[in-house]
Amino acid sequence: MINRLIEGIQKTGAPVVVGLDPMLSYIPGFILREAYSEFGETLEGAAEAVFRYNKGIVDAISDIVPAVKPQSAMYEQFGVPGVAAFKRTVDYCHEKGLVVIGDVKRGDIGSTSEAYAAGHLGKVQVGSNRLSAFDEDFVTVNPYLGSDGVKPFIKVCKEEKKGLFILVKTSNPSSGEFQDRLTDGRPLYEWVGEKVNEWGSDFMGDGYSYVGAVVGATYPEMGKILRSVMPKSFILVPGYGAQGGKGKDLVHFFNDDGLGAIVNSSRGIIAAWKQEKYASFGEEGYALAARKAAEEMILDIHQALESRNS
Amino acid sequence: MINRLIEGIQKTGAPVVVGLDPMLSYIPGFILREAYSEFGETLEGAAEAVFRYNKGIVDAISDIVPAVKPQSAMYEQFGVPGVAAFKRTVDYCHEKGLVVIGDVKRGDIGSTSEAYAAGHLGKVQVGSNRLSAFDEDFVTVNPYLGSDGVKPFIKVCKEEKKGLFILVKTSNPSSGEFQDRLTDGRPLYEWVGEKVNEWGSDFMGDGYSYVGAVVGATYPEMGKILRSVMPKSFILVPGYGAQGGKGKDLVHFFNDDGLGAIVNSSRGIIAAWKQEKYASFGEEGYALAARKAAEEMILDIHQALESRNS
Repeated sequence: MINRLIEGIQKTGAPVVVGLDPMLSYIPGFILREAYSEFGETLEGAAEAVFRYNKGIVDAISDIVPAVKPQSAMYEQFGVPGVAAFKRTVDYCHEKGLVVIGDVKRGDIGSTSEAYAAGHLGKVQVGSNRLSAFDEDFVTVNPYLGSDGVKPFIKVCKEEKKGLFILVKTSNPSSGEFQDRLTDGRPLYEWVGEKVNEWGSDFMGDGYSYVGAVVGATYPEMGKILRSVMPKSFILVPGYGAQGGKGKDLVHFFNDDGLGAIVNSSRGIIAAWKQEKYASFGEEGYALAARKAAEEMILDIHQALESRNS
Repeated sequence: MINRLIEGIQKTGAPVVVGLDPMLSYIPGFILREAYSEFGETLEGAAEAVFRYNKGIVDAISDIVPAVKPQSAMYEQFGVPGVAAFKRTVDYCHEKGLVVIGDVKRGDIGSTSEAYAAGHLGKVQVGSNRLSAFDEDFVTVNPYLGSDGVKPFIKVCKEEKKGLFILVKTSNPSSGEFQDRLTDGRPLYEWVGEKVNEWGSDFMGDGYSYVGAVVGATYPEMGKILRSVMPKSFILVPGYGAQGGKGKDLVHFFNDDGLGAIVNSSRGIIAAWKQEKYASFGEEGYALAARKAAEEMILDIHQALESRNS
């Protein structure tokens, strides 16, 4: 799957993933009204609106980006119907040929991580059937529990040829509270990065490992160091756009081959129609606004990478 | 809710929570056969079996323990039907008067943690309705992202009078890999414990904070230190029984008032019928075997606390 992700990046020229993190406040009124008129102002109605909104965006961007990243929380907030909309979104994105990174940030003791891994990436045995549950291509994993919380995910990834992005240095303002703590002269996130490198070293695709890392665009200097700590790990970079990261902050996340990183934007793309800059699209044009914002993001990253090389 | 949990502990005399972590291998054949005959060997069939199995156990233990802890992973592995069985379990446990600790170990950047908190503990606004989604009473939270990943949960807890258990020192063998790293002379878990104490200090119930901690029974010496670092935080203690913790390992997790900790057992109770020791119950008696195992666990903890005082 890491090979497929890289092929997708090369084919589209876009090291970009679109975060499908729908809040109801991002969804155009006409979609909400239609969903509520069918299902009421209920969890079912909200979940239906979320799926239709996602579908519009996916239709508009599936030929220019290789991957999407639905954020589990935004679906779980609508309960069981919300989780069903998450699954419909995963399936629809697969129909459209996109790689799906489930941003679930799971992680637990060994036997529990096994169940998460089976549910999100693998298969579960029910009687004589082996069944897929959510069936994402990658998931994000929280490393706080150490190796035996991560290895069950790696085991399932090996069976299914799927991949992981382990949280190393997150994009949020207080990520340093624990992640930056110095131990033996190096911050915790570097030790986590070392482990990511180790976990991935015996699980390689053609050029990169199946075990990637999450490092926030908001911390470019740390990204530079982590790039060298984990040379064979793909880095999923959140925090571009709405969280403050810019193209020029991203160059150090990439290797000299122009690969090694995939940059996420959520709000900045999917809610572009609400920005002054894209107001001319109107609410009916929300998906085209998203496409336009994605194109501009791709260009921004290209320009930053080119000026690095010049 | 922390007051209600404490009342429940005092009323039952049981500082015990039963982990509802169903694996299909724990479920008696007669339940599986019934569920599969109605729903097939499908995710729906597995989820139905899980719910029926849980219901039997809950009926058998709801008068002797104050709380249950369903583990999200065990339901997510069966996809959307599994998550629906999680929600049915939460609701059924509420009908039976039990406090429900959702073992979800979520945690993300601020806006995302807000959505998790709304979905699991709070309410979500859909049109003119404010709706509950999963509606647990407590959830477990992963602290790796720092304060701004935790505070949105605290905000919702304040609105809803609900509570948290933050992962501090987990019960698994490799938990020390990152959690034990020394910074400024103290292991990371102590710094996390300090933060738990701080986060909880302005959010107190009658005697204990709404912000509790998870500390594994498998690390009793660390539990002793963490007890003093977080004197007003309730400690949720996993790792009893099947993971190796015993009553005598637990005494330091309790304060002198006999409160301050609630001990979880999952497999050791819910799959008791599969142990040699409880074989006489047979598979039809699985719920009574669970009750018997819970009674013995309560007695083991009582005896350990009494011998501490003598």
